[in-house]
Amino acid sequence: MELLIVRDRRIDYDGSAIRSHWAYRNFGLLGNSLVVFRGSCNVKIEEMVDIEDLRLQNEIKSDDMVHYIIEIFDFVNPLFASTLQKLFIAKLCEVLSEYGIKTERKGDDIYVNGKKLSISIATISPVSVKIHIGINVEARGVPEGVDAIGLRELGITDVEEFMERTGRAIVEEFNKVKKDSLKVRWVQ
Amino acid sequence: MELLIVRDRRIDYDGSAIRSHWAYRNFGLLGNSLVVFRGSCNVKIEEMVDIEDLRLQNEIKSDDMVHYIIEIFDFVNPLFASTLQKLFIAKLCEVLSEYGIKTERKGDDIYVNGKKLSISIATISPVSVKIHIGINVEARGVPEGVDAIGLRELGITDVEEFMERTGRAIVEEFNKVKKDSLKVRWVQ
Amino acid sequence: MELLIVRDRRIDYDGSAIRSHWAYRNFGLLGNSLVVFRGSCNVKIEEMVDIEDLRLQNEIKSDDMVHYIIEIFDFVNPLFASTLQKLFIAKLCEVLSEYGIKTERKGDDIYVNGKKLSISIATISPVSVKIHIGINVEARGVPEGVDAIGLRELGITDVEEFMERTGRAIVEEFNKVKKDSLKVRWVQ
Amino acid sequence: MELLIVRDRRIDYDGSAIRSHWAYRNFGLLGNSLVVFRGSCNVKIEEMVDIEDLRLQNEIKSDDMVHYIIEIFDFVNPLFASTLQKLFIAKLCEVLSEYGIKTERKGDDIYVNGKKLSISIATISPVSVKIHIGINVEARGVPEGVDAIGLRELGITDVEEFMERTGRAIVEEFNKVKKDSLKVRWVQ
Amino acid sequence: MELLIVRDRRIDYDGSAIRSHWAYRNFGLLGNSLVVFRGSCNVKIEEMVDIEDLRLQNEIKSDDMVHYIIEIFDFVNPLFASTLQKLFIAKLCEVLSEYGIKTERKGDDIYVNGKKLSISIATISPVSVKIHIGINVEARGVPEGVDAIGLRELGITDVEEFMERTGRAIVEEFNKVKKDSLKVRWVQ
Amino acid sequence: MELLIVRDRRIDYDGSAIRSHWAYRNFGLLGNSLVVFRGSCNVKIEEMVDIEDLRLQNEIKSDDMVHYIIEIFDFVNPLFASTLQKLFIAKLCEVLSEYGIKTERKGDDIYVNGKKLSISIATISPVSVKIHIGINVEARGVPEGVDAIGLRELGITDVEEFMERTGRAIVEEFNKVKKDSLKVRWVQ
Repeated sequence: MELLIVRDRRIDYDGSAIRSHWAYRNFGLLGNSLVVFRGSCNVKIEEMVDIEDLRLQNEIKSDDMVHYIIEIFDFVNPLFASTLQKLFIAKLCEVLSEYGIKTERKGDDIYVNGKKLSISIATISPVSVKIHIGINVEARGVPEGVDAIGLRELGITDVEEFMERTGRAIVEEFNKVKKDSLKVRWVQ
Repeated sequence: MELLIVRDRRIDYDGSAIRSHWAYRNFGLLGNSLVVFRGSCNVKIEEMVDIEDLRLQNEIKSDDMVHYIIEIFDFVNPLFASTLQKLFIAKLCEVLSEYGIKTERKGDDIYVNGKKLSISIATISPVSVKIHIGINVEARGVPEGVDAIGLRELGITDVEEFMERTGRAIVEEFNKVKKDSLKVRWVQ
Repeated sequence: MELLIVRDRRIDYDGSAIRSHWAYRNFGLLGNSLVVFRGSCNVKIEEMVDIEDLRLQNEIKSDDMVHYIIEIFDFVNPLFASTLQKLFIAKLCEVLSEYGIKTERKGDDIYVNGKKLSISIATISPVSVKIHIGINVEARGVPEGVDAIGLRELGITDVEEFMERTGRAIVEEFNKVKKDSLKVRWVQ
Repeated sequence: MELLIVRDRRIDYDGSAIRSHWAYRNFGLLGNSLVVFRGSCNVKIEEMVDIEDLRLQNEIKSDDMVHYIIEIFDFVNPLFASTLQKLFIAKLCEVLSEYGIKTERKGDDIYVNGKKLSISIATISPVSVKIHIGINVEARGVPEGVDAIGLRELGITDVEEFMERTGRAIVEEFNKVKKDSLKVRWVQ
Repeated sequence: MELLIVRDRRIDYDGSAIRSHWAYRNFGLLGNSLVVFRGSCNVKIEEMVDIEDLRLQNEIKSDDMVHYIIEIFDFVNPLFASTLQKLFIAKLCEVLSEYGIKTERKGDDIYVNGKKLSISIATISPVSVKIHIGINVEARGVPEGVDAIGLRELGITDVEEFMERTGRAIVEEFNKVKKDSLKVRWVQ
Repeated sequence: MELLIVRDRRIDYDGSAIRSHWAYRNFGLLGNSLVVFRGSCNVKIEEMVDIEDLRLQNEIKSDDMVHYIIEIFDFVNPLFASTLQKLFIAKLCEVLSEYGIKTERKGDDIYVNGKKLSISIATISPVSVKIHIGINVEARGVPEGVDAIGLRELGITDVEEFMERTGRAIVEEFNKVKKDSLKVRWVQ
C-alpha cells in the first residue's frame, strides 16, 4: 500500500476524490494507496455517497480538515469496505490515544468528550474499495447542529506530523492485515 | 448475527471449533454467529491454522480462557477474514478500556503492560469466514517464554459479565458494519 | 428480506425503479427488499434493460399492473439474478394455482390460455441483483400484437389481497432459499 | 449443460455422487451436466450434506428412485445452489402437472396429496454447485414415519420416459436461465 | 466463444466498442465473443481506458488496422482480463511465427524488428471482461514519435485470410483454456 | 511475486507440492511465489490433478526435470488458473526462442520437432491458484509411448542458468500482468 502525504499544498475535498483511480489519475499512484492531504470539506450533492445523508439532505462540510483517501484493489465488496473503514477508524483512535486523547468510536465516527471529530464514508467502485476519512483541524464551518471538535482544541498543533503519523499507522495496519491473511491454512 | 453465551458449562478448546458449521452442528445456530464460552486451550497440531506456528512448532495453550468463535457466511475471503478479526480485537480493546484497562493492540494480539492477554486466528473454510479469539482468564498454563496476563490480574473477576459484555459488543460492531455497507451508493 | 406493500397510492413504472437502492432511497428499506405497488407501465427507452427489446425496438407498457421490485445484496451475478427471477415467477404461478388458475410458465413469462399475463426483467447493478415483475391487472394499453390477459379477466378482483399474498409468498420463498443455503456442509 | 440418461443399468445412490466431478470421473462429462439414473437410495452418514439431518440422525433412503445429479461450474455459491435447486424442483412440479398430477412444492420438497414424493440437497464443492434430487418410483424402503408416495402410485409407469422428459426439462430451464443472463445490460 | 469476421464492410474504431455488450447490440452475438473487423483507429479521449495514456495525453490512432474485440462473461476481474489479453497477444505472435515473422512481445505489445505492430487494452465492465487488440495493416496515421510497422510491410497482403486465421486461433486458445479448467480436481 | 531458485539440492516431485501453501510451509515464502527446482518427477496417483489422467491411468514421470511451482493468492478461479498457466507456457516458449529453439505450444504443452518437452497442470486450492510446470532436462524415464525431448538434447547444458532465466521471465510476466490490471479504468 503506497502512502502519499501531500505537504506542499492544500486540496479542498468536494467528494470527487471518492471515485476510482483518483490517486493514480492525480498522483500516479498505482494499486493500493493512501493519500493524506489537508483542505476544506464541502461535499457536492452529486458526490454524496451515503444515501441516508441524501435522504435527510445533510450537509457535509468543515473549513479545515485532514483527509485520508484510501483505495484497495484486492477485491471489491461493500461489506469488506465497511469493515476496513471501521478498522482504520479504530486505528486512528489508537494513535490519538498515543497523543493522550481519549476517544469514543461509534462505528465510523470519532468523538471526544461527546463532540464529533471526524466524518467518513466507505463504498465500492466497480474496480476497488474506496474510503474517505476527514478529521477536523478546527471545528469551524461544520453543519449547524453538529457539536464538533478539532485537532487544535485537542492540543495537536503540528498537523503535518499528525498526518504523517496517522498515515503510516493506517498503512502498517493494512500491511499487517494482508500479511496475516496469507499465512493461514484454510479449514474444513 | 446470532449470539450465544455458554454459561452452564465449560468447553475446552482444542482447535476443532475453527471448522465450518461448528456452531450449527453443536448449538443449532444457523448463519452468522458468535459463540462465547470458557475453558482451557490446547490446540492440537492437526488443528493449527497459523502455518508460522506450525513451522516454529509453537504451542498454543492456556489453562483458562474466554473463547470467541465467530462464523460469517456473507462471503469468503482471507483478507476479509483478517480485517474482521483485527476490528473485533480493536473492539475488545475498547471494551477493556471501559473497564479502565489500558491495552496495546498489535495486529490481532492484545497486550497490557507488555504482557500478552490474548491469542487469535482468522481463516476461511470453503463456505465461511472463521475467527477464534481467546482471552486469558488467568495467565496459567501458557507456553514457556510467553509473558502472559489474564483478566483476573486486571481486576475483572466477573467473567460471565465480561463474556456477555464483550459478546454483545462484537455483535453490535458487526451489525453496524453490515448496516453501513447497505446504505451507500457505489461510485464511478 | 423486507416486504413493503404500497397500498395508499399508485406508482407508475417507467423503468427507473430497476436502479440500485431504489427501495432505500424512496422508502428507507435497507438491505434485501421487495416492494409491491400498483400503477401503469411504460418503460422509457433509456431505462430498458433487455438488449433484445432495445434491438427490436419493443415497447413495454400496460395501463394497470401489479409491480414487484426486488433487490438482493447477498452477491452480485447475472446468472444468479436470472435464476432467482425464474424461481419467483414459478412461485407466482403456484400462488395463481391456489386461486384456481392454471398457468404456463415460459422462462420468466406467465401465460394463461396462451395469453401473456406478465413481464419481467432481471439484472445486476454494481452492488445488487435487481428484478422487476409486472402482472397485468387488465389487458389494456399493452403493445400491439401482444395477446395479453389480466387478473380481472381471471376473476381476481381483490388486487390488494393479491399483492399481499404474492408479496408474502415471494419473501417466504427467498427466506427458505437462504435458510437452506446455510445448513449444508460443503462437499469434496 | 450436458444431459446423460443412464438407461442400461441401475446405479444405487449412497451419497458419494454429490462430490465434485462425479459426472466427469464416471461418464467423461466435462462442464455443466445433469445425469439422470435409477436405483435405490441409502445415504451413508459420512456422505450426508444436510447438517440438520446429521443432528437429528435422520435416515435418507428409498428402495427405488429416479436420481438427478446436477453440477454447475459457472460460479460457486451456496445461495445460488439453493436457488437453482428450488427452481429445478419447481420445474419438476410443472412437468408433473403436464402428467395431470397436482403437486405441492414446499421449498425443495414435492408433495402429492400430502405425501412426500422427493428428496433433495444442494451444496457446493470448492469448484462447483452440486444438486441431488431423488423421486420415489415406489414408496418402499423409506424411513419410518415418512408418509411417502411414488411415481407408480401416481400412474407414471414408463419411468424411462419420465427420466427423459424431466431431464430435458431441467436442461432447457438452465439453458434459458443462462441465455437470459447474457442479454441484459447492467443498471446504475 | 462465438467468432464473427466482418468481411463486407469497414468499421472505424473510436473506442466505443470497448463497452459491454457491444457485440450483442451490434451483431446479436450472445455470450463470449470475438469480433474481427478492419478499419481506422482513432480513440476519442472520453473512450480511453488506459489512464496512463490519459495522463500523458497520448494519441491512439492508425489509418488501417485489423481490430479484435473480445468479450468474456465467465467472470469479471481486471487481473484475469490482463492475463487473458497477454495470452491472446502471445497467440497472435505464434500465428505470425507461422507466417515466418519473428516477433517480440513486450507485455501486450507486439514488435517486429523493434517497430510497433499493435496496440491493445484490457479492462472490465460490470458484467464482462473486455479486450481490444489492433494490428496495423499499414504503418500510416500513427502518432508522431511511434516507430510503427504494418502487416503489409511484413508481407501479409491477404488481410482477410489473416483476420480469419488469427480469429480462429484466438477462439481455439480460449476454448482450450476453458476446457482445461473443467477437467482438474481441486487440491487441498 | 517472490522468486526462489533452489540451487543447492534436488527436490523430487511427487505431486504434493501442488497443495496450497507449499512454498510457505517449506521455504517461508509468503504470498505469490514461484519456486524453481530440479529433480525427478513421479506423480503419485493420489496427487494427480488432471482427472483425464486418472481416468486413463496415465503415468506422469521423468528422471530429471526443471520444476516450477507457482502459487497466486489474488483470487481463486479455475479459468484464471488455466489462463495464467497457458501464458506462462507461452512465456517459456519465448525464452526458449531466445536460446534459438523453435517450439510449438499446444495449450499447456511444449513441443520441439514434434517431441514433448514439458508437462503442466493448473488448478485451485480453496485459497489460491496453483500451477506446476515441468521441463525435461533429459528425455529419460518418461512414460512409454511418449516421444519426449529434454533441454540437453536442445543444447541447453547450463541448467541452473536456464532455471534462473526462465524463473525471472515468469515473475516479470506476472508483474507486468498485474501492473497493467491496475492502470485501466472500468468501462460502461
